[in-house]
Amino acid sequence: MYPRALIPLEKTVKILDQTRLPGEMIYNEYDDYRDIIVSIKKLEIRGAPAIGIAGAYALAIAAHADVDTDVEHLKRILTDVATEIKNARPTAVNLAWAVDRTLNVAHAYGGDDKNEFCGHLWDEATAILKEDEELCAAMGRYGAELIKDGDTILTHCNAGALATGGMGTALAVIYAAHEQGKKIKVYADETRPLLQGARLTAWELQQAGIDVTLNVDSASGILMRQGRISCVILGADRIAKNGDVANKIGTFNVAVLARAHGVPFYVAAPYSTFDQNVNSGDDIPIEERSADEIVNWGGIRTAPEGIKVYAPAFDITPHDYVTAYITDKGVKPGGRED
Amino acid sequence: MYPRALIPLEKTVKILDQTRLPGEMIYNEYDDYRDIIVSIKKLEIRGAPAIGIAGAYALAIAAHADVDTDVEHLKRILTDVATEIKNARPTAVNLAWAVDRTLNVAHAYGGDDKNEFCGHLWDEATAILKEDEELCAAMGRYGAELIKDGDTILTHCNAGALATGGMGTALAVIYAAHEQGKKIKVYADETRPLLQGARLTAWELQQAGIDVTLNVDSASGILMRQGRISCVILGADRIAKNGDVANKIGTFNVAVLARAHGVPFYVAAPYSTFDQNVNSGDDIPIEERSADEIVNWGGIRTAPEGIKVYAPAFDITPHDYVTAYITDKGVKPGGRED
Repeated sequence: MYPRALIPLEKTVKILDQTRLPGEMIYNEYDDYRDIIVSIKKLEIRGAPAIGIAGAYALAIAAHADVDTDVEHLKRILTDVATEIKNARPTAVNLAWAVDRTLNVAHAYGGDDKNEFCGHLWDEATAILKEDEELCAAMGRYGAELIKDGDTILTHCNAGALATGGMGTALAVIYAAHEQGKKIKVYADETRPLLQGARLTAWELQQAGIDVTLNVDSASGILMRQGRISCVILGADRIAKNGDVANKIGTFNVAVLARAHGVPFYVAAPYSTFDQNVNSGDDIPIEERSADEIVNWGGIRTAPEGIKVYAPAFDITPHDYVTAYITDKGVKPGGRED
Repeated sequence: MYPRALIPLEKTVKILDQTRLPGEMIYNEYDDYRDIIVSIKKLEIRGAPAIGIAGAYALAIAAHADVDTDVEHLKRILTDVATEIKNARPTAVNLAWAVDRTLNVAHAYGGDDKNEFCGHLWDEATAILKEDEELCAAMGRYGAELIKDGDTILTHCNAGALATGGMGTALAVIYAAHEQGKKIKVYADETRPLLQGARLTAWELQQAGIDVTLNVDSASGILMRQGRISCVILGADRIAKNGDVANKIGTFNVAVLARAHGVPFYVAAPYSTFDQNVNSGDDIPIEERSADEIVNWGGIRTAPEGIKVYAPAFDITPHDYVTAYITDKGVKPGGRED
């Protein structure tokens, strides 16, 4: 069974502290929305869907707080709280979306029963969680049909349970195939600079009892050349109208290598990742991250002082490198012809 | 001016402690061959040509030691010392070759003048150094003709001055083009797992005043797709008879990306790297390195305990991905057709 990033209890949530992974598996239980904000800021929980769910529960927990006030006043308080939660990760679209959705339920409530009001908020957060679980499960179900018994899958970064409310996106396919009894192996790119592959993907697959092997990113070529990889499955941050994929730096390298070796290249992402406002990958600006992530490690300087660094957060994989998209509405063919 | 890995003085050598790079530039001066053995073992000096030169000087320094004995007895002592030096890095072919060459000079000496005898050994070590300098300079000279003013070059790992007695192999081309007044830029792959690109290549190019930018290995694709790379130049551990290249893990990834983007891919290596005993890359076994290099960093565990790791030391780039080989005897065309 895959690990859960967030587990709701009664009026509290348990959040897996991902900053302690892979060394320690510690769930922190929170009964105060302000602690959840800190948890989001500290990256204890990360991944767009997962932080959206955490934000929704944070708002529901704020409503539950034992404040001696009426529903109307509480609505006004929660409007401010919602802004506070959304500011925990201001660029995270999912966080704002999930918090606003829960806040809308608050404003739509017409009664004056505070318990009922709080229950509605909690139910909305739970609905968001359940919907995400179902999205993940659907991707897993559709994607698993592409996986044969004995396949070996290469993945990059972490598009797993740790990033979502359910079993992940790319890794959902792996979990689903595994649950169907297919014997599969996984190679996980370590994913420099932040090592999400080593710290998160390798860990969660190991937890789920799946045969996983870690490799440096630049070993993907030799793995394919040796014929060890049946297919690539990874996630997406954003997919343009024409099918170009923005995803973690290194995705494009894997895509080029996969096409050169005739290895199918699958992108797993919910339908909401397809951005109808962006025509092609050329319209997506490449955000750069801090050089610190590359020139230091564990407090040790690993590159000379004053060195220039090019640190793109993600790259663009043109649609003609994509064999297919695995979505919650089924598998859609990509633009790759081979 | 590029930094020197080893500088001979009178009866001593100064070795740049590469384990302190890029933080500190410290030369240790050695007047005892046993300290040079430790220096080689501790990887203060690394790179096949550089440790060969260090080994030759170690033998010459052992002869100079103030032992009250005659030349014939000294020859016998040096035979044992030579074995001791060669065992510092038993698999390093260059080390054995350079030490044996110096030992042969000892055995070929027919006189009984200890000073003259010692002088011959020192001169032989210096000859090995000078020959390597000349090899590097020749590669630089031939290779620089391929570089145009304004070019941007991507390199991988460290095939630089720090690995040789001279200005390096791949980096020799860069130094030579720079000395010709060509305005060039370099992108250096950091080169996981041991970060030779970040620690060594970025440092030595920076020292030489060359415009260098560091990137994670998996950013090579986006760099080429953005049209930022004029050509790739890197070194080789071994080149088979058919032109297949064994070199640091990740070389093949860069080669595939370069061909996909029409970016010339140059391998710089002295003629001695062409192994006439190996028909093709398929005959070169892929040595694996310790998993420790991938799962730990700065004392911090970055991957889960018990994780399987695939850690190939190098990969094979087939000759049809090579645009040309830059050797000390000129530029030879590779098998790539585009």
